[in-house]
Amino acid sequence: MDERWNERWSRRGKIAANMNRPSRTAAEGMISFVYGDPDPDSLPLEQMARAADVLAENNRRDALSYANPVGPDGLSLALANKLHEDYGLDVTAEQVLLSLGAASGLGLVVDMLVDPGDVVLADAPAWMGATGMFRLAGAEVVGVEVDDEGVNPDRVLEAIDRLAAEGKAPKFLYTIPTFQNPSGVELSLERREKLAEIAQDKGLLILEDDAYIDLRFSGEPKPTIFGIAEPGTVLLFGTLSKTIAAGMRLGWCAGPADIIAVLSRGRTDSLRNTYTAALAEWFITTGQHRDHIAELRNIYSTKCSQMLTALEREMPEGASWTSPNGGFFIWVTLPDGVDALDLQPIAQENLVDYIPGTSFYSDGSGRNALRLSFSAVTEEQIDTGIARLAKVIREAM
Amino acid sequence: MDERWNERWSRRGKIAANMNRPSRTAAEGMISFVYGDPDPDSLPLEQMARAADVLAENNRRDALSYANPVGPDGLSLALANKLHEDYGLDVTAEQVLLSLGAASGLGLVVDMLVDPGDVVLADAPAWMGATGMFRLAGAEVVGVEVDDEGVNPDRVLEAIDRLAAEGKAPKFLYTIPTFQNPSGVELSLERREKLAEIAQDKGLLILEDDAYIDLRFSGEPKPTIFGIAEPGTVLLFGTLSKTIAAGMRLGWCAGPADIIAVLSRGRTDSLRNTYTAALAEWFITTGQHRDHIAELRNIYSTKCSQMLTALEREMPEGASWTSPNGGFFIWVTLPDGVDALDLQPIAQENLVDYIPGTSFYSDGSGRNALRLSFSAVTEEQIDTGIARLAKVIREAM
Repeated sequence: MDERWNERWSRRGKIAANMNRPSRTAAEGMISFVYGDPDPDSLPLEQMARAADVLAENNRRDALSYANPVGPDGLSLALANKLHEDYGLDVTAEQVLLSLGAASGLGLVVDMLVDPGDVVLADAPAWMGATGMFRLAGAEVVGVEVDDEGVNPDRVLEAIDRLAAEGKAPKFLYTIPTFQNPSGVELSLERREKLAEIAQDKGLLILEDDAYIDLRFSGEPKPTIFGIAEPGTVLLFGTLSKTIAAGMRLGWCAGPADIIAVLSRGRTDSLRNTYTAALAEWFITTGQHRDHIAELRNIYSTKCSQMLTALEREMPEGASWTSPNGGFFIWVTLPDGVDALDLQPIAQENLVDYIPGTSFYSDGSGRNALRLSFSAVTEEQIDTGIARLAKVIREAM
Repeated sequence: MDERWNERWSRRGKIAANMNRPSRTAAEGMISFVYGDPDPDSLPLEQMARAADVLAENNRRDALSYANPVGPDGLSLALANKLHEDYGLDVTAEQVLLSLGAASGLGLVVDMLVDPGDVVLADAPAWMGATGMFRLAGAEVVGVEVDDEGVNPDRVLEAIDRLAAEGKAPKFLYTIPTFQNPSGVELSLERREKLAEIAQDKGLLILEDDAYIDLRFSGEPKPTIFGIAEPGTVLLFGTLSKTIAAGMRLGWCAGPADIIAVLSRGRTDSLRNTYTAALAEWFITTGQHRDHIAELRNIYSTKCSQMLTALEREMPEGASWTSPNGGFFIWVTLPDGVDALDLQPIAQENLVDYIPGTSFYSDGSGRNALRLSFSAVTEEQIDTGIARLAKVIREAM
């Protein structure tokens, strides 16, 4: 790089300059359990074309214009309505900040809350995209243990106390309570209630990311922390990337209207993705989104079962894994002495890939674990890929 | 606002909390010359519907998937090709960072370059969206005089020297050389060459925003500063908001491939707007974009002439204005003693609106000027609106 640039980068720029972001393109023949991409065969290309026709038929010029990210436009109303019908939440359109994917909303919120040197709490393991944003903003990330019932509120309290002893307070807790990325686990109701209580008592802001909430395989949804907690203690993030398409770049953040209004001013460029918002509005308000979600639940439930069966069949003694009731991911703990980071190049040589557990921790732990995504692979790829993976694990033992 | 939030906001959050962003919705009957929105009647709703059909027919699943913002995808290639054909630039797809509107790319670049307390140079008057971003990032904005030939390189050198005497160096110069927002003027070739020279000699990074470059009313395009300057001294920003639709949220930034790669890692959420990118790709590669631009040039040229004629007819002695050869804006200087900021509420009562000049300066100047946008109003509205505006100005004299 031209050396003049060394002095040009800001603090954030220097972090990015020293970062790697692997290419999303997999090698020929690779069975990749890496990305949490939606199932490609179920992407609603036809429906989006129909939606675009409807916009043209109705001369929906607003769909091609600039618009602010906070409604009360059609999509914000549709999302508020969905949150009410599906999750019993009372959210008005003015309480919904539309973002260019949920990550864009989270990135904005992080920049609006975090100054360099601040401490934030996050699931451990946590979605690497989120912790990456926290680090770009200059935050120190403190992980809070996630077990089979989700993030542990006792560990949250301990972290708060430990930080208080150092004169610090965490800016927020970031957690995915439902079909967590990367572990696939669901936070228990008791823990949701406990976290809501901690938020109120300790003044802890919770960033609740419910990207996978609609993709439940069975049973009734649990209440969101947002719904249980006092208003203003939780911001709720959601996305249409998993249930319509990631390429639409549509996500949202819900919170008190006055907070949402401030957040919308945090980036001059935080404008509404107007055209795709109008396509999604039609898809949701015509009821097709609901039907599509029902199909997706079947698709992902089947793929997940297939992967669990394959793991059961192929994996050596000593390996264990989570059994998700929704979402895209299974978290595998390897037999003693097998290192997921060391194993990855060997797995790749054998044409199977995953994300090593270390990517989801901020303290170097997770070497004995890995994340498998079942969402974007075929059932045949699942069987072949898990067999390949089990083989390299067995050879490493 | 819930008082717990007072301590939650970051430095940036506090700035946004104390900011206003006026609603984009105009009052009933208002003739608004405020926004630089594209002409609503020419928005290509039908063509985007056709494009969506083509994506469905061709099973373009990639158009609904996650993708990184840097190509070599279809749209990046199409844009690189367009830059070569129309402006003689040699840019590869890897040198193009696709962003969610040009503002999104600029916002990212600003965060990657500016730490709080840094100084940046900008056109004076300058596009308020850009200076707003600079301030959110914590920059001190130093304005550099724009006259009838654009930003003045001598003033740039003076500013650099003045800052050097204080031990400071500007992080960059932000300028719109072509049909500038807000003044409508075009930077002369001589000044472009001079700025390229300053960039090389003084190590000054130039952010060249060419949002309006395609909307030239007559004559041949001038070379971009990017094209004249040494590689790595200029980043070039462009947008499809003005020539396809703002609601597509598609913009781009071009620069050296290694710099573009770093920039793409500056936000975890800086992903490609895949679906609208694929729609735009079709529109460009089928030649329809070129035809559409030709139509738009006629439309905006006619509107601009209409507004210039109306100003000539209606405005009192002592008022003057620019005569743009492209873009969306005319800059009006008011007769002595008339204050555009004080006048605005009276103008609004008389159902005509504009942006006072002060919004485009960082030092409180510009009270004697205002920006008129002719892009989104009808010819009839131009005549009526300018008559209304001239009346309130005459009454204020």
